[in-house]
Amino acid sequence: MTDWQEISGGVTAPKGYQAAGITAGLKPSGLPDLALIYSPSEAIAAGVFTTSQVKAACVDYCRQRLHAKHSARAILCNAGQANAATGSQGWFDALESAMSLGQALNIPSESILLASTGVIGRRIPMDILKAGIPKLVAALSETGSDAAASAIVTTDLVTKSIALETTIGDRPVRVGGIAKGSGMIHPNMATLLAFVTCDAAVSPSLWQQMLSRAAQRSFNSITVDGDTSTNDSLIALANGQSRTPAITEMGAEAERLEAMLTAVCQHLAKAIARDGEGATCLVEVQVSGAPDEQSARQIAKTIAGSSLVKSAIFGRDPNWGRIAAAAGRAGVPFEQENLKIQLGNFLLMENGQPLPFDRTAASGYLKQAAADSSLPKDVVATNMSNDLSGERRFPTQRLDNPVIIAVSVGNGSGSGKAWGCDLSYDYVKINAEYTT
Amino acid sequence: MTDWQEISGGVTAPKGYQAAGITAGLKPSGLPDLALIYSPSEAIAAGVFTTSQVKAACVDYCRQRLHAKHSARAILCNAGQANAATGSQGWFDALESAMSLGQALNIPSESILLASTGVIGRRIPMDILKAGIPKLVAALSETGSDAAASAIVTTDLVTKSIALETTIGDRPVRVGGIAKGSGMIHPNMATLLAFVTCDAAVSPSLWQQMLSRAAQRSFNSITVDGDTSTNDSLIALANGQSRTPAITEMGAEAERLEAMLTAVCQHLAKAIARDGEGATCLVEVQVSGAPDEQSARQIAKTIAGSSLVKSAIFGRDPNWGRIAAAAGRAGVPFEQENLKIQLGNFLLMENGQPLPFDRTAASGYLKQAAADSSLPKDVVATNMSNDLSGERRFPTQRLDNPVIIAVSVGNGSGSGKAWGCDLSYDYVKINAEYTT
Repeated sequence: MTDWQEISGGVTAPKGYQAAGITAGLKPSGLPDLALIYSPSEAIAAGVFTTSQVKAACVDYCRQRLHAKHSARAILCNAGQANAATGSQGWFDALESAMSLGQALNIPSESILLASTGVIGRRIPMDILKAGIPKLVAALSETGSDAAASAIVTTDLVTKSIALETTIGDRPVRVGGIAKGSGMIHPNMATLLAFVTCDAAVSPSLWQQMLSRAAQRSFNSITVDGDTSTNDSLIALANGQSRTPAITEMGAEAERLEAMLTAVCQHLAKAIARDGEGATCLVEVQVSGAPDEQSARQIAKTIAGSSLVKSAIFGRDPNWGRIAAAAGRAGVPFEQENLKIQLGNFLLMENGQPLPFDRTAASGYLKQAAADSSLPKDVVATNMSNDLSGERRFPTQRLDNPVIIAVSVGNGSGSGKAWGCDLSYDYVKINAEYTT
Repeated sequence: MTDWQEISGGVTAPKGYQAAGITAGLKPSGLPDLALIYSPSEAIAAGVFTTSQVKAACVDYCRQRLHAKHSARAILCNAGQANAATGSQGWFDALESAMSLGQALNIPSESILLASTGVIGRRIPMDILKAGIPKLVAALSETGSDAAASAIVTTDLVTKSIALETTIGDRPVRVGGIAKGSGMIHPNMATLLAFVTCDAAVSPSLWQQMLSRAAQRSFNSITVDGDTSTNDSLIALANGQSRTPAITEMGAEAERLEAMLTAVCQHLAKAIARDGEGATCLVEVQVSGAPDEQSARQIAKTIAGSSLVKSAIFGRDPNWGRIAAAAGRAGVPFEQENLKIQLGNFLLMENGQPLPFDRTAASGYLKQAAADSSLPKDVVATNMSNDLSGERRFPTQRLDNPVIIAVSVGNGSGSGKAWGCDLSYDYVKINAEYTT
């Protein structure tokens, strides 16, 4: 499966992409707040967006654009204002943003996609945005991925970035991605945003199918607080600059590309879960024996999303009863006599019967997983501060040692995973301590 | 509608009921832990139970009993062990509990219903339970409701009790109820339990229909942490001792009885939401303009259950964007141009457009609602202590001034309510600080 290697470069690792991130002045903090990903050649474009009935203007805009034309050359993203619940004025702001960038890049505005993150109900200050656009275009660079990744974050503690390379038809093909999101960490900030670039040549419908499936196995399998944002957007471009043969139907090469695309999305999704508000560790829930993959994922996501399971993990408490209870309420029928629960290497329940186990050692396992992925305290303190005016330093997040909860519910062939994080005091602090 | 009055007496207010609550020694704390509700005459019995796939033995037991026979004389409830995830041994423990009580009361064990709450995966210590049963029967009294209400709690801060009286055929008819639950407040404790008594004469199928509908509008419309317990049980008895004409089909009198039953259930449900772990206030979400009642309730429950909305209320932050976002992800289609949001008397959004409002005054509204229902600090401290050995004092909880969030999503005729509470540091503390 993993016949690819990790490389550096994020969204600018694939051939033919440039990126930039600047401070336009949209955020009161003075931190970078405007990002651009640009492919000088038209790229096949696919998107997956929030299912919320309350949608940001940029989400409506992208849906319409991608419905009319399955390609694009640029993704513009602002941080600071979500442009959601802004009424018809928000829609005009979105159109004007695209037109301004089209002029600056000298491309049709139809080739531009948009994303926003920030305060719901607040308009983008258009004068500031428009003044920033020429500066943003001037900053475009083939090594600009990190700058773009830093400009799309709100109160994320780390940036999220990855690039992978494989070979198709003896030529290198690359997929890169950046993302932001840590639940809806800031009092008014929200949103999961992910942008993926690829230099393979692939047909529009196949690329959209691949992206939709990859999203199911990655971003749609994470949960931080159960709150779906108004702005969630995953956009993937494929510009064909690898000069590899066009992939137009499923087959060995398409499968390899989809697997790599899925790996990129899973890395970004796990990074978002680990960076969930107040989280101290990444939790991976593996469910097997379900009727199908979808049911397995549903159980996994219910367990990963349970406030009680999350609180127990924060307390380093191997409280398997809560895992059993969460599995039971997931809405997937199973016989409780078939239930098996493992935490790391500790077998806690089998055939629906509780088993004796070493609680202290199991608690130690939870402690170790958290210790292995902890961030430097000074980084956390700096990056959690809401009104800092200085620089933020984004360390690399370790995702290789999550807390693993493995659950089997029967003899079905369906298996699936979900990722989440623990629930700590800081979650409440971050989301409650907002002085009106 | 409300042609009834509140009276005292809880489950022993209706004619022909006795109740008791004692300390059998099932809880390590030495607090009351065994309760009995008894009707010397056989009563029509209806029940609503957890939908979880992982169910306690007592839930399986009650389902089977009520399937075979729609009547009962006694409800036995132990606190301390949930008798859930206890395998086949748990089932035999349930049978043995019923047989022991049947012997002590000299009634067939088929007339006994069971409920348990406490640690999941732990068996009831049967020797202690059986030793307690004669003492429990000896303590039965026509004023025993409060004793029973105190013996079913786990770490609830208040007991939950209500009784209402109306007139049917010129004779008084009463419905009483007690309940326990505050989310799954204690690290391993769980469960919503509610027991309702009534002295009307009503047919079994009608009584079950009334109870199911009442449960939808009360217990199924509250959310504390979204975690459905393995043991949730609502059991309602109707023994006919009011000597009123038998109600066998819907009509004016049946509607009055059902409305009163619903009011009893709603009172108990709201009391549970207000007593949610760590909660500082009760939140009522009113949704109107939806296609039907079920859709309205679904939106209301999604808003009431949103961690972000709950955190904002704890922070006394009138953050309407989170209310809009939660409404949008509830799974009910609506046009966001029709969205209207009110917090108390503050109109925050209309026709999908944000409106200017006085943030400080709106925050003050949230503060006031919390202040109006706050409990004495010493009571909270005592009752939150896990290993206290002394007496707990249960004050009366004020439920008359909740935080009101009113949302309209269109012109549909469907309206519905849900109740919840805010999310505080204490929720995390209660659920995480469990030393293994």
